Amino acid sequence: MFPKSFMFGASLSGFQFEMGNPNEVKELDTQTDWFVWVRDLENLLNGIVSGDLPENGAWYWRNYEKIHQLAVDFGMDTLRIGIEWSRIFPSSTKEIPFGEGMLEKLDEIANKEAVEHYRRIMEDMKAKGLKVFVNLNHFTLPLWIHDPLAVRKGKPTDKLGWVSDNTPKEFAKYAEYIAWKFSNIVDYWSSMNEPHVVAQLGYFQIMAGFPPSYFSPEWYIKSLKNQAMAHNLAYDAIKKHSDKPVGVIYSFTWFDTVEPNDKGIFENAMWLANWNYMDQVKDKTDYIGVNYYTRSVIDKLPTPIKFQDFELNWYTVRGFGYACPEGGLALSGRPASEFGWEIYPEGLYYLLKAIHERYNKPLIVTENGIADEKDKYRSQVIISHLYAVEKAMNEGVDVRGYLHWSIVDNYEWAKGYSKRFGLAYTDLEKKTYIPRPSMYVFREIARTRSIDQFKGYDPYNLMKF
Amino acid sequence: MFPKSFMFGASLSGFQFEMGNPNEVKELDTQTDWFVWVRDLENLLNGIVSGDLPENGAWYWRNYEKIHQLAVDFGMDTLRIGIEWSRIFPSSTKEIPFGEGMLEKLDEIANKEAVEHYRRIMEDMKAKGLKVFVNLNHFTLPLWIHDPLAVRKGKPTDKLGWVSDNTPKEFAKYAEYIAWKFSNIVDYWSSMNEPHVVAQLGYFQIMAGFPPSYFSPEWYIKSLKNQAMAHNLAYDAIKKHSDKPVGVIYSFTWFDTVEPNDKGIFENAMWLANWNYMDQVKDKTDYIGVNYYTRSVIDKLPTPIKFQDFELNWYTVRGFGYACPEGGLALSGRPASEFGWEIYPEGLYYLLKAIHERYNKPLIVTENGIADEKDKYRSQVIISHLYAVEKAMNEGVDVRGYLHWSIVDNYEWAKGYSKRFGLAYTDLEKKTYIPRPSMYVFREIARTRSIDQFKGYDPYNLMKF
Amino acid sequence: MFPKSFMFGASLSGFQFEMGNPNEVKELDTQTDWFVWVRDLENLLNGIVSGDLPENGAWYWRNYEKIHQLAVDFGMDTLRIGIEWSRIFPSSTKEIPFGEGMLEKLDEIANKEAVEHYRRIMEDMKAKGLKVFVNLNHFTLPLWIHDPLAVRKGKPTDKLGWVSDNTPKEFAKYAEYIAWKFSNIVDYWSSMNEPHVVAQLGYFQIMAGFPPSYFSPEWYIKSLKNQAMAHNLAYDAIKKHSDKPVGVIYSFTWFDTVEPNDKGIFENAMWLANWNYMDQVKDKTDYIGVNYYTRSVIDKLPTPIKFQDFELNWYTVRGFGYACPEGGLALSGRPASEFGWEIYPEGLYYLLKAIHERYNKPLIVTENGIADEKDKYRSQVIISHLYAVEKAMNEGVDVRGYLHWSIVDNYEWAKGYSKRFGLAYTDLEKKTYIPRPSMYVFREIARTRSIDQFKGYDPYNLMKF
Amino acid sequence: MFPKSFMFGASLSGFQFEMGNPNEVKELDTQTDWFVWVRDLENLLNGIVSGDLPENGAWYWRNYEKIHQLAVDFGMDTLRIGIEWSRIFPSSTKEIPFGEGMLEKLDEIANKEAVEHYRRIMEDMKAKGLKVFVNLNHFTLPLWIHDPLAVRKGKPTDKLGWVSDNTPKEFAKYAEYIAWKFSNIVDYWSSMNEPHVVAQLGYFQIMAGFPPSYFSPEWYIKSLKNQAMAHNLAYDAIKKHSDKPVGVIYSFTWFDTVEPNDKGIFENAMWLANWNYMDQVKDKTDYIGVNYYTRSVIDKLPTPIKFQDFELNWYTVRGFGYACPEGGLALSGRPASEFGWEIYPEGLYYLLKAIHERYNKPLIVTENGIADEKDKYRSQVIISHLYAVEKAMNEGVDVRGYLHWSIVDNYEWAKGYSKRFGLAYTDLEKKTYIPRPSMYVFREIARTRSIDQFKGYDPYNLMKF
Repeated sequence: MFPKSFMFGASLSGFQFEMGNPNEVKELDTQTDWFVWVRDLENLLNGIVSGDLPENGAWYWRNYEKIHQLAVDFGMDTLRIGIEWSRIFPSSTKEIPFGEGMLEKLDEIANKEAVEHYRRIMEDMKAKGLKVFVNLNHFTLPLWIHDPLAVRKGKPTDKLGWVSDNTPKEFAKYAEYIAWKFSNIVDYWSSMNEPHVVAQLGYFQIMAGFPPSYFSPEWYIKSLKNQAMAHNLAYDAIKKHSDKPVGVIYSFTWFDTVEPNDKGIFENAMWLANWNYMDQVKDKTDYIGVNYYTRSVIDKLPTPIKFQDFELNWYTVRGFGYACPEGGLALSGRPASEFGWEIYPEGLYYLLKAIHERYNKPLIVTENGIADEKDKYRSQVIISHLYAVEKAMNEGVDVRGYLHWSIVDNYEWAKGYSKRFGLAYTDLEKKTYIPRPSMYVFREIARTRSIDQFKGYDPYNLMKF
Repeated sequence: MFPKSFMFGASLSGFQFEMGNPNEVKELDTQTDWFVWVRDLENLLNGIVSGDLPENGAWYWRNYEKIHQLAVDFGMDTLRIGIEWSRIFPSSTKEIPFGEGMLEKLDEIANKEAVEHYRRIMEDMKAKGLKVFVNLNHFTLPLWIHDPLAVRKGKPTDKLGWVSDNTPKEFAKYAEYIAWKFSNIVDYWSSMNEPHVVAQLGYFQIMAGFPPSYFSPEWYIKSLKNQAMAHNLAYDAIKKHSDKPVGVIYSFTWFDTVEPNDKGIFENAMWLANWNYMDQVKDKTDYIGVNYYTRSVIDKLPTPIKFQDFELNWYTVRGFGYACPEGGLALSGRPASEFGWEIYPEGLYYLLKAIHERYNKPLIVTENGIADEKDKYRSQVIISHLYAVEKAMNEGVDVRGYLHWSIVDNYEWAKGYSKRFGLAYTDLEKKTYIPRPSMYVFREIARTRSIDQFKGYDPYNLMKF
Repeated sequence: MFPKSFMFGASLSGFQFEMGNPNEVKELDTQTDWFVWVRDLENLLNGIVSGDLPENGAWYWRNYEKIHQLAVDFGMDTLRIGIEWSRIFPSSTKEIPFGEGMLEKLDEIANKEAVEHYRRIMEDMKAKGLKVFVNLNHFTLPLWIHDPLAVRKGKPTDKLGWVSDNTPKEFAKYAEYIAWKFSNIVDYWSSMNEPHVVAQLGYFQIMAGFPPSYFSPEWYIKSLKNQAMAHNLAYDAIKKHSDKPVGVIYSFTWFDTVEPNDKGIFENAMWLANWNYMDQVKDKTDYIGVNYYTRSVIDKLPTPIKFQDFELNWYTVRGFGYACPEGGLALSGRPASEFGWEIYPEGLYYLLKAIHERYNKPLIVTENGIADEKDKYRSQVIISHLYAVEKAMNEGVDVRGYLHWSIVDNYEWAKGYSKRFGLAYTDLEKKTYIPRPSMYVFREIARTRSIDQFKGYDPYNLMKF
Repeated sequence: MFPKSFMFGASLSGFQFEMGNPNEVKELDTQTDWFVWVRDLENLLNGIVSGDLPENGAWYWRNYEKIHQLAVDFGMDTLRIGIEWSRIFPSSTKEIPFGEGMLEKLDEIANKEAVEHYRRIMEDMKAKGLKVFVNLNHFTLPLWIHDPLAVRKGKPTDKLGWVSDNTPKEFAKYAEYIAWKFSNIVDYWSSMNEPHVVAQLGYFQIMAGFPPSYFSPEWYIKSLKNQAMAHNLAYDAIKKHSDKPVGVIYSFTWFDTVEPNDKGIFENAMWLANWNYMDQVKDKTDYIGVNYYTRSVIDKLPTPIKFQDFELNWYTVRGFGYACPEGGLALSGRPASEFGWEIYPEGLYYLLKAIHERYNKPLIVTENGIADEKDKYRSQVIISHLYAVEKAMNEGVDVRGYLHWSIVDNYEWAKGYSKRFGLAYTDLEKKTYIPRPSMYVFREIARTRSIDQFKGYDPYNLMKF
């Protein structure tokens, strides 16, 4: 059983959900690195991006009331939404110095229409009884901060995104501005979503199709550091205006080793993938948002790779975790999602325990779900991952909620609309949202606050840990 | 929308559900052809049967209250159960002549314990608000009527099952006895389930593992005729004691032809598989019970095969309908069940129309479902087949209900427990029944009497006809 | 290196090779149990036989000169052919008593045309320098000895095939007659081919489509005993007229156990499958003909099955040996043939050693090959199995030759023409024989008497034992 | 039948074959763009290259005599080898002006040891009766001409490879120097191999792992133009010293369109992929070397893509030609190689006809083969592609020879040793070369100069066009 206070809900973001009509794309929609990235010729011709465009998406910007109602109808009490930085500040804020009078000056150049629209969205949530959980940055950066095409080609530019040392400060301005504007309505604050993914896929694992796909171990490290600094500054900035919890959302990965108890590589991997960033922000976070999808299985690298003061002594074994055939089976015998991700709920349990032990903060599962257009596995994913949460809670871990990714199908970055994570199916033509069967399972759980009625049926042996 | 009077429920049978504890098997459980068939050495050594035994099953005999409650909790208003002939009359009734005083004499040799237990079962159904739908024969025959091992080996025996010309009369005795005993509690009567399957798999398609697996076109025909006669006699017998509807349950197959509109083979196939039997009983049935699983795709046979006054001018094309790889895909791109049966709801629609047109009787879907242990497709099966039902109803076909096969996993004949058709999972060790996710979808539909909330999400294009 | 005396050749049989033109089928072609079996309605309708007919076959009866020339051109020095009993004696020989004057009386009723044609075949072999290796019985029985349709249906008949106690004597008459007629031309005699297969598939594993597919452990045992007696009688009969080696051809199976060194089941299996028959004939054989295709992997049966004085304490594990997916992979990772048989040459080595140790006789590999229409694996099969032979020879086993099954595609019993074992492809329309690529590899080996040139290339790790 | 003058042989290159011992890598081996490319951290960490290293390769540099003997033993009369530019001129030749005295000055800075070793190689070929076919450039460029790592990262560099306008002249110097040195021994000259691949994979289809993987349609065009100019200059340079035929080797692609006779896209594709380069060099080539592997199936692009004065109006359809699953099946039902390339011999026939018609030059098939470690398809590939050659010759196309790629397994660029194209298997540990079964088929054909003996056996219907 989950306590009454435990949040059941879903997570959304700005770029992936807001747009939905190519005829209504305004200049404001076009000012992010991702907007130009997904229509770049090099990316398109080489299959680096899908060719799908965000303006054909779920259209939350227009249909937010319908989506909020859907949430309520299916037992949710919380929605996490994203604010798109470039909508609020489509042009540079660099000229405005930090300090006295900053907010008023920012207000002059801020896009008021966007500010007001976000308020309408939040007010509708409140009116429907939903807690307002706001995340300030989810991958996308304003073009005046990041020019990914120039960066990739090695062209001279100062728009280096998080690699620029002044980006954290600009972020803090934006964060404080939002806090100033919305402190009276927001229930939960998050600075940013998955900073490590931005750094790792942008500068290290460059085949994933993330901007700028420019290999540079130095920049990988710098991007991560600057994102940590940005969070810390934003935390203080928000706290000036709001007494609600401020946290950060991070995509944690659990690691299993081929050799049992191979601590040497386990700790190296856990540190690189999880603790490195979190340690830098741990004093400025009221809770930790835990995004979880699957594990990695790793083995020892014959020769460790060194860069800067980092050392990498392991590699990922194919056939498990994130490295499975799309829509196939993991070598564990478990199904893999349409993304090729193994269903591995025990990883969430292990991580909740480990994060709790290391940081002793309240935790919220801020993302969990599966790319599963046909809804073959989603019910089991929900049940089994909540089993992991419940087990951790029973053992003393303070988990405050479970926000599913996501309520409706949306724009999955470089993969476009081919990867469908929605509890409800999004008809991209008609802009309708039809609950998949699993959404009724979600409702059953949210309403009863229990998964006991599902225990005993475990077709993939997901709940045997 | 389905009308208030439309029945939502599930179907069960005797042999497949009742037993559940090897330590409680009594002599009475052992008196059917199937009981000896599934433990015969020839069958076991050659993989003709699974090796699973019915006494390890769902244990409805003991747990009927739990299963009835499950039905009620998930929106069902009707359950179809089976009465096991050999339990009521474990020894021969041949000595008792038809006519005056027959019932009292039958009562002397009937197994009272079984009669009373069936009454307790039905009373519990009533108490819980469930309509009582009783079917009198579902494949199994008492051993004193059918000795399948002797028949298969060509050994001299008069226990030829439905091939014996006196079996219809014995059946009528049994039917009248049951009607006499239970007329005050039963809401719907059915004489028998899928007579054609018994004839076809017993004497024609002998690789399916059904007793007696003795190829004989003559006996195939005779078995079918005698089962028709048995139904007709039973109809009159039941009507003497009950004014409730009496019908027959038949497994209809829809046929698609490789060449479009190949009437020559279509009509031959429809007649052989569907109309031949039904035409013989059409004047003695108040409704027709329609079991539907999938279609057959057929093509013309270069040389027709003749036997008796029958002619077969077609053959089944592999890769469609019943002839798909287990757990794979049909050549249509649709998923096939763990039984290798294509999901093809349009066939149900076509059949309801055709049966309605030919017989103009009320119809009840008395079986529909899927072998799907992991519940990957069951929700879509329910939704799409109810779509077929609704479409037929909108076009004037009188359909009175939908009984899913089945409420819990049970004993699937020669395949044993490997084919799981339950809305709820049966834990065969603990004898517990845990609703699968799809059962919540069933509940949603039964409670709202609607599938509109699912329209628009159709991941396999099942609802485009 | 193989010695000069080592025979390289191929094996054929009568029924599978002789016929080839439906317009030339004479009554004489029709007098075997298999001829009626493969056109029986029950078998056809149930997919028990393929529907392919032997009269559309390779037409050796007419084209023997071409096939002999093909053998010579590709380095063969020996061909094993079969004589079809029912051709020589299309009607019963029972009236002719054993003893004085028997041969002359048999000669009166023998089919002279067939006798002369077989002589022409053998003379052509001799003329081309091929050794004449004659096998007297290969599965088929004359209809006057075996009526498989009656047997299967349990109809009263005295035509019980090898189950009849007088069949061995009839066989001995036939054998002596042939020896009398052909002793001046035959180089190697074999009484019969794979007696165990006839018994096992006829009376025990009845799903393989072999006549009479009538389950009876008693008859399985009796059939085997009578075939052993038949061999022993035939041995003496042939020896009266010929001083050439007389042997028997047996399909040996190697057994691996799931639990290492599981002697209890290993010895039971080896005895049942291999030694039981061979022990009965070991004193009447000048050599042992070893047919080898693959292994079986077995595991312990929880409860042993007893019949007569036999006990079966193991079962075959799916995914290995004979029990693999057709055209797929064994669970060992090795390819399986189009018959679903794992490529497992080490089994031949183990068997040659074991047979040598138990019987200390000269051995000849009388069959080995693969159903591989596209010739993907046949070269490796030849090389790796000759590696097994060479290794055994190097360790002291006396192996005298390797006869591939077969030189051209032929009629594979219940499977018809779908399983192609030929070194040369048979064009069934044009009756032409085109050497597959692997036949050039065979020629290279036969001419150099060596496989050394292939060692070092072992793409499936077949030669690592 | 192929005429006596028709060359049967194989093709090799420098970088892919020469090295073979990490302990003997000298500075001279390290001076190519590919040498640094395949050990770059970015490439390794992102799976852009295999991790295999060329210095573990077939070791032709040391073992050339063995490989030449292998060629002779298997019926070859010609070998095409490559000379590695950076071995001859490990440092820049830019300082030496074109014209009078150039050769002597080049001789001063040329690496004499390499020159002499190449002579030894050619002399051994001659001594064994092999025609010497020399190609001067096969993908690799000296590091002093091309710094692929700098180019990819957009770092300032003048080492732009073929994008530099002075590279053609440097190539001409190198070509003339080689012609001056080896004119008395070389039988066939080729300037370069597959210039279009270098341009296309370097600057357009950048996911193939070829240096510099820097997307730039402008540079794609420029690289192609400069390579054409380089060929034309080299042609004249060689002709000063040798009267033997000078040509160019090009990888032609055949295109099939989804819509039949879709000339609009067919001609666009043929021009871009084949004619654009060839038209620029057609007046300076004595023969055309045709490399052929498979086709592309293309369909119309809704919106054509323009760059410079080029227009691309088609895209490649997955599942055919080069775009098949590795080791799987093409959508045509034909097997795909381990590289995912459909076996499509008719494309070679169509191309030979089209090239002949457009240029009317003698043609030589300079590459054809398959990545097929286990040799499942190679025999059929050889037979069916020679069928295409023979058919074109019968229709008047002047084809002079067939050089298989390749005689032994070698280093397949970004894929390393995982793609094995050898007629003989290369044991990379022992540096031995074991003929695969298909090499005996090659020998049979080369010796008989005929494929007639294989006609009639066509398991994949490859020879039905």
